[in-house]
Amino acid sequence: MRPVALLTDFGHADHYVGVLHAVLEREAPGVVRIDLGHGVPAGDIWTGSFQLRCAWPHLPADCVVMAVVDPGVGTGRHAVAVTIGSRSLVAPDNGIGAAVSGATAAVVLDWRRMGLEEPSTTFHARDLFAPAAARLACGTGGLELGDDIDVASLLACPLPEPTDSRSGLEGVIVHVDHFGNLVTNVRASEAGSLATASWRAGRKSRRVATYGDAKAEEVVLLEGSAGYLELAVNCGSAADVTGLERGDTVVISK
Amino acid sequence: MRPVALLTDFGHADHYVGVLHAVLEREAPGVVRIDLGHGVPAGDIWTGSFQLRCAWPHLPADCVVMAVVDPGVGTGRHAVAVTIGSRSLVAPDNGIGAAVSGATAAVVLDWRRMGLEEPSTTFHARDLFAPAAARLACGTGGLELGDDIDVASLLACPLPEPTDSRSGLEGVIVHVDHFGNLVTNVRASEAGSLATASWRAGRKSRRVATYGDAKAEEVVLLEGSAGYLELAVNCGSAADVTGLERGDTVVISK
Amino acid sequence: MRPVALLTDFGHADHYVGVLHAVLEREAPGVVRIDLGHGVPAGDIWTGSFQLRCAWPHLPADCVVMAVVDPGVGTGRHAVAVTIGSRSLVAPDNGIGAAVSGATAAVVLDWRRMGLEEPSTTFHARDLFAPAAARLACGTGGLELGDDIDVASLLACPLPEPTDSRSGLEGVIVHVDHFGNLVTNVRASEAGSLATASWRAGRKSRRVATYGDAKAEEVVLLEGSAGYLELAVNCGSAADVTGLERGDTVVISK
Repeated sequence: MRPVALLTDFGHADHYVGVLHAVLEREAPGVVRIDLGHGVPAGDIWTGSFQLRCAWPHLPADCVVMAVVDPGVGTGRHAVAVTIGSRSLVAPDNGIGAAVSGATAAVVLDWRRMGLEEPSTTFHARDLFAPAAARLACGTGGLELGDDIDVASLLACPLPEPTDSRSGLEGVIVHVDHFGNLVTNVRASEAGSLATASWRAGRKSRRVATYGDAKAEEVVLLEGSAGYLELAVNCGSAADVTGLERGDTVVISK
Repeated sequence: MRPVALLTDFGHADHYVGVLHAVLEREAPGVVRIDLGHGVPAGDIWTGSFQLRCAWPHLPADCVVMAVVDPGVGTGRHAVAVTIGSRSLVAPDNGIGAAVSGATAAVVLDWRRMGLEEPSTTFHARDLFAPAAARLACGTGGLELGDDIDVASLLACPLPEPTDSRSGLEGVIVHVDHFGNLVTNVRASEAGSLATASWRAGRKSRRVATYGDAKAEEVVLLEGSAGYLELAVNCGSAADVTGLERGDTVVISK
Repeated sequence: MRPVALLTDFGHADHYVGVLHAVLEREAPGVVRIDLGHGVPAGDIWTGSFQLRCAWPHLPADCVVMAVVDPGVGTGRHAVAVTIGSRSLVAPDNGIGAAVSGATAAVVLDWRRMGLEEPSTTFHARDLFAPAAARLACGTGGLELGDDIDVASLLACPLPEPTDSRSGLEGVIVHVDHFGNLVTNVRASEAGSLATASWRAGRKSRRVATYGDAKAEEVVLLEGSAGYLELAVNCGSAADVTGLERGDTVVISK
């Protein structure tokens, strides 16, 4: 049986994530379950997409991933299962379904085709996505879940890409992590030898190799664990020190 | 082996939930474990009971559920194992043990009968409830855990039921979820065609089918995923917008 | 296969813990995984060491524990695997690696010896500790992970021990838990018949057996679930009532 990984914005205050695990175990007894995380801010498709991209390379080869950040639940948006290499991604078609590149096939989830009861209007993760993930885990093929669609028709992931500007690579903070690190959308590999970050009027940070290379309280630029450049403060929170937030601009230059 | 699901108010700051998992794995190696949730507010039997009721229909058929919200730990309150259909519920006898209807048998957990060391006075989840759940998972019968008691003698669940009033069905907010949805104790099936919620002096909300039917910032009434009516704001927090809290009254009328 | 337990300060906002689970499942398919907790305050080696000590006696006999609170990631500090009885502890050598007594052997983790890619500078939990834990789970011996070192050379755990003073046993609050209980480093067994806690100028608490023995709002002293004395308020938060914090002094006397 294939393992199933879960990523949602459901948080930890409720029974919602627990019910997903219960449905997976009920529909696919003994299935290996992995919580990729449930701390995506409510409805935040950027962060969900970003965390999915960061975790993706480390997943088991045949993993089924269920990524549900779904502010449009109960409206007309599609629910999809996407084939990407040997893995499957089950998600709403709101951008998070296209967060990972390399899709080769996709189907629109069809509760009738799967023999399910009509889903509620508010909890498709429980009523549609989890049963679909359980079926994929048990070896069911995508076409038994719904009709084929062109992968090119999936709603594009809204996560912004960095842009070239006169001053350098203009990036955006796409994630503020638990430690207060400000993670940008600029890959270290794209930045090459650019080694200065500019943020707010006139504030600059130099590039270092690891947290321990920073002076006390210094805001430094370094390559984070997923290959993206981030602003960080050693043993401190760059978010607190700088006041920067998700969506703010950071320019990477010489 | 039967799967074991855990629901507590232990939160995620400590090692307490981790120790429960360790004890389950030690006492029942390989047992399937499901975290239903550990975000119940400290000592809040209402919320624990409500989350348990909401999750219950989705559990594996033979699941053992360990639900521990236990402000009276170490006092004379009983610890019980209750049989409900093909599932078992292990819980303190403080109301949460009677949160789910349909009990057909119950025993008072007896550490001597189970061959355990004398439990600590502060952590019965570790010393009594988890070992009992592990034994049930392994196929031990209830009577090997302690003496039979009448299910009618279990302390009644304190979660209030809605009342009929001149103005309609008078409900109570019993849960504020991670998204700020205000979940009442009024089942949509009871409310029938009643389609207006009144809260605070003169504030009213119309009933809609799903979050996406609401206008921006509008507080709407809809059927939540467990069949209860809830106040919600699309892509926002009804708790923040209304200032309503757990325990506040909501009247459902025509 | 041996079970693997995880303790970190990674929190629940990100995909970091999820990636550790993914790596464990990828490197040791089907391995039993236990989350001991991920709520250790960022970089707080005291709390990490304390939670590890408290959980340790309850772990499966052959458990591999991965405890990563690692403010020095990417610097010269060693990563180690320590043998303690029939269990293994994988951790940075920054004090947490020596949090549990009884070590009989230790090796310095060597990514080349393990055939790994060169670890990132910021996420050794993913790139070094988790692969090492997976190998130990699968039966690999310590010496296949790196060179032997003297256990006496491990950096000592910085968690303070209580000191004898004229007024009694002088302890320190080493953990504030989810319920607001203030857990000291004084073992109840050391305190013997000492039954009064003094904190701040002139404030005193009497010793009781369990939470239910306290009067409303009373701050009492009792033996917590791991054998340490703690200040607590029944159905309330001793942290809120007293204003005491981690690191504050509590004197235990007659």
